[in-house]
Amino acid sequence: MKTIITYGTFDLFHIGHVNLLKRAKSLGDHLIVGVSTDEFNQSKGKSTLIPFEHRMAILESCRYVDTVIPEENWAQKADDIKKYKVDTFVIGDDWLGQFDELKAQCNVVYLSRTKQISSSSIKQALQLLSQLDKELG
Amino acid sequence: MKTIITYGTFDLFHIGHVNLLKRAKSLGDHLIVGVSTDEFNQSKGKSTLIPFEHRMAILESCRYVDTVIPEENWAQKADDIKKYKVDTFVIGDDWLGQFDELKAQCNVVYLSRTKQISSSSIKQALQLLSQLDKELG
Repeated sequence: MKTIITYGTFDLFHIGHVNLLKRAKSLGDHLIVGVSTDEFNQSKGKSTLIPFEHRMAILESCRYVDTVIPEENWAQKADDIKKYKVDTFVIGDDWLGQFDELKAQCNVVYLSRTKQISSSSIKQALQLLSQLDKELG
Repeated sequence: MKTIITYGTFDLFHIGHVNLLKRAKSLGDHLIVGVSTDEFNQSKGKSTLIPFEHRMAILESCRYVDTVIPEENWAQKADDIKKYKVDTFVIGDDWLGQFDELKAQCNVVYLSRTKQISSSSIKQALQLLSQLDKELG
């Protein structure tokens, strides 16, 4: 059995997430997803609109995902790869080259991201809509 | 085999959607989801942030959902129930009583919605954040 692992925040679950998870799963048999906790995000100065428990539950409802675990710190990836006997670590290519040190432990694959969609772009679109509403209203 | 059907827009896929789909699926064996097209929403004066094709694909990635179909007009429900030999029509209880006429064709179940979350509440939260950003920025 080939085990794949990926990590992310998965705020405002969108088509880009689905595409990445589907492709990650297609690389093996069992897909583990590490979801950043709210505390870990806070330590990075990052906030989400959707709380951790909801983000976990949404990932668990995805047919491409077999196991969901919390991601609590930067050092965890190397431990998880060992613990879960991971064959391939997958991440979006916005992180290109930044996890090459994991190549000592397993395959590292950077997947191209879905164009024109991200949690940030959804937030920006909402802000523009809200501004337009005010200007027109 | 017991067939269940539900309908919705599923903009900004969230925990409330997941809970409803999981409970709908638990009422039978095969869950069909009708997703409002952008044109149908337009005719209702409703707009979404996420385009129809993305909303369809996200539903298709959900493990509780077996078949996804477009919903194009109000009259379609009665036709679908006949066409797919539906046993139970399910919808959130914000529509309580409004689909009772379908009881002539199948079971009609109104499920309670997940408290404190909806696509609208996510949009409102984003607008508040954006306003706060401006005031603080």
